[in-house]
Amino acid sequence: YDYDGPSMKTSVPGPRSQALTKQLGEIQNVGAVNFFCNYEESRGNYLVDVDNNRMLDVYTQISSIPIGYNHPALLKLMANPNHLSTLVNRPALGILPPENFPDKLTESLLSVSPSGMTRVQTMACGSCSNENAYKAMFIWYRNKERGHNMPSDEDVSTCMINKAPGCPDLSILSFNGGFHGRTMGCLATTHSKAIHKLDVPSFDWPMAPFPRLQYPLEEFTRENAQEEARCLEETEDVIVKWRQKGNPVAGIVIEPIQAEGGDNHASPDFFKGLRNIARKHGCAFHVDEVQTGGGATGKYWAHEHWGMDDPADIVSFSKKLLTGGYYHKDELQADKPYRIFNTWMGDPSKNLLLAEVLNVIRRENLLEEVTRSGKALLNGLYDLQAQYPGILSRARGQGTFCAIDICDDATRNSILLKARDKGVLLGGCGDRSIRFRPALIFKEYHVHIFLNIFNDVLAEH
Amino acid sequence: YDYDGPSMKTSVPGPRSQALTKQLGEIQNVGAVNFFCNYEESRGNYLVDVDNNRMLDVYTQISSIPIGYNHPALLKLMANPNHLSTLVNRPALGILPPENFPDKLTESLLSVSPSGMTRVQTMACGSCSNENAYKAMFIWYRNKERGHNMPSDEDVSTCMINKAPGCPDLSILSFNGGFHGRTMGCLATTHSKAIHKLDVPSFDWPMAPFPRLQYPLEEFTRENAQEEARCLEETEDVIVKWRQKGNPVAGIVIEPIQAEGGDNHASPDFFKGLRNIARKHGCAFHVDEVQTGGGATGKYWAHEHWGMDDPADIVSFSKKLLTGGYYHKDELQADKPYRIFNTWMGDPSKNLLLAEVLNVIRRENLLEEVTRSGKALLNGLYDLQAQYPGILSRARGQGTFCAIDICDDATRNSILLKARDKGVLLGGCGDRSIRFRPALIFKEYHVHIFLNIFNDVLAEH
Ligand code: FES
Repeated sequence: YDYDGPSMKTSVPGPRSQALTKQLGEIQNVGAVNFFCNYEESRGNYLVDVDNNRMLDVYTQISSIPIGYNHPALLKLMANPNHLSTLVNRPALGILPPENFPDKLTESLLSVSPSGMTRVQTMACGSCSNENAYKAMFIWYRNKERGHNMPSDEDVSTCMINKAPGCPDLSILSFNGGFHGRTMGCLATTHSKAIHKLDVPSFDWPMAPFPRLQYPLEEFTRENAQEEARCLEETEDVIVKWRQKGNPVAGIVIEPIQAEGGDNHASPDFFKGLRNIARKHGCAFHVDEVQTGGGATGKYWAHEHWGMDDPADIVSFSKKLLTGGYYHKDELQADKPYRIFNTWMGDPSKNLLLAEVLNVIRRENLLEEVTRSGKALLNGLYDLQAQYPGILSRARGQGTFCAIDICDDATRNSILLKARDKGVLLGGCGDRSIRFRPALIFKEYHVHIFLNIFNDVLAEH
Repeated sequence: YDYDGPSMKTSVPGPRSQALTKQLGEIQNVGAVNFFCNYEESRGNYLVDVDNNRMLDVYTQISSIPIGYNHPALLKLMANPNHLSTLVNRPALGILPPENFPDKLTESLLSVSPSGMTRVQTMACGSCSNENAYKAMFIWYRNKERGHNMPSDEDVSTCMINKAPGCPDLSILSFNGGFHGRTMGCLATTHSKAIHKLDVPSFDWPMAPFPRLQYPLEEFTRENAQEEARCLEETEDVIVKWRQKGNPVAGIVIEPIQAEGGDNHASPDFFKGLRNIARKHGCAFHVDEVQTGGGATGKYWAHEHWGMDDPADIVSFSKKLLTGGYYHKDELQADKPYRIFNTWMGDPSKNLLLAEVLNVIRRENLLEEVTRSGKALLNGLYDLQAQYPGILSRARGQGTFCAIDICDDATRNSILLKARDKGVLLGGCGDRSIRFRPALIFKEYHVHIFLNIFNDVLAEH
């Protein structure tokens, strides 16, 4: 059901997209709009725009389309009249769940649980997933401090006016270059771009350095190990410092691959070290898989590549999982109802889609496909960077979750636009990286279509 | 398509609900679960549970079901194969909107814009709606302080490490008893119950008193006006105080009727006074209509009852509107892209449902129906409180957005359970109130079914 290649009629955005952008501009800020899409005509790896341009989509709605556009299995699912009720009656899941809710969780999210986790809380997007994961860590930490879960009268009265000890001075440690969302709790742990944070009040929470590795990783093992050791050491210093200044670290949050911040990788040893530091200092360890989760690295979870039995206390997800939420170890479950709560607590119509997406991933062996395409993609990028050393550097990736650096920001942006006009939709990340975020159905021959076009773009530069 | 009355087979939760609660308890905290539902069999004002109990639903999923369960118009809409693509391809609306997005906004959300507002930003739930509204107010306030929208180098560098001036010391003023959500920015403005806030770090943001009025409002105009004057005065004092301590109030957020906090009303004069105070002190004025919006007060927006041309700078919504989001005045639009942004920025499949809900509201004159049923409901509550003065007091409401106080918390909870066993599903709010949150299709005869059962419950007490 895929198209056989890009097909371009106009430069992008074309005239129809421009007219619609003008129309939408009367209603919203449209500075970020790339172009308008015809989602009915889009299929598989191809996104069709309103000017009838058909582009190979290597960005997939900021990495959130798991199995391509209009996958027949999903169309069939949604056309099934048995599911109409799920589409029109959105329940308050925390108080009045539908009959099939436990079964749906078991057959979908729990069928791909991270190691050591049998509990999952659904949410509706990456931000509320992380916000609630942070709250769960704070609650856990305070109960640990108390030695029991009975708040004092002072806790109860002070929390109502935003004061300690009820609203305690506790922090979440995050990393330079990390991105965990844009609501105010999440945003205090986000350090990717200034425009995300500017003018928004924040918390006095600590930031540690994320390793800045040299690629290919295999060629710089010694240098990279040193850099990671430095970062681990600084992380530990920061934890001690924040404890001393009366704002202890309740949890550490980290992406297995920093995505928005520029596709920064670190080794399994680094994450193991960090896990140990968290344990040593009594901090919860939260792995944010909002962008990395769902199969793009060749495994359901990027942290599986670390090979650990007990990789984390909390793992949050969204995007390709279609629903949001987080898995957690038993002790991270809030002790009382209504502590982790909101009106909807997710959306069963998204759980329904997710269950079918997981079926498709299994049936079509998509994780193996991703591993295969990912190798072809990364090797292709290595070749191109050998060919264009003045433009390209630092090709890196796991599965199809790949990236490459461009010599400077302006060149990066011009390459993105030129690629788009030739029928390849890509996204940027960090200061001057291009990130590759195809759907899981991106096969080896799609890699070659991409590489050919990318080569043409580079040749013209 | 409605049922003709409640029909009870078991006490609630029945055996099937209990078994499912146990099953779900292996996966999540189930302390808040009331019972499990059969949404397929639920219709109109009636919620059917998995033990085949059919209850008149006067709570509607925490006030989030606009036109009842399985409304034929919504079933028809979702069965239309033209909409399949919207259901399976969730776009990143901020960068790649679908062709019909501007038209859909115009025919749905903008067709019910609050006075003075032609711009709307969709979001996905009440929390991200408010979080982003707060961010918009902070950005607006800082640009106003600067006199231009060019951040300094210091702004840019400090914001990356959560420090002023980039992450400025600015605050949002909220009210005692207010509820604006549970993500960390929202939560700092929420002051309803301790359990919502306990153990979660917060901001040093000011809280002002919300008027505590006597009901019926018509009988206590003088006393209530005094109470409101006191609250306005204190509000102004707090604004001055927070400015003096270097944490100025960028915005004021308030519900037109405090919902979670106990259904607290205030007069149009109070809100007019507050609007003026906001203007005088240069604070943005944000009216949170997440629970009040969508028709339950007999108007689309509860603030319409104030009769003002320029009621607010920002109005946020969610729940009955099915999507989240906020309207805002032109000057509250962020000056640059990616400042108000996230992956999904709402969900076109919810906009689709909303457009049809608004059609149904118009076609079936539901706002008039709500006004009529609301009168019957409130009069019935007045009668009951005259009959049971030892149990009931402070009946109050606008449209069907009504509440009544019970003598104490324990009696309240026992009444809620007894009513449920007799086939009426109600919700609590505040310390000892019962809130009525029926769908917009709750007619006068539903009011009478409810009143009869409620009377029986009270008589047994
Ligand atoms: S914060 Fe996640 S959907 Fe609103």
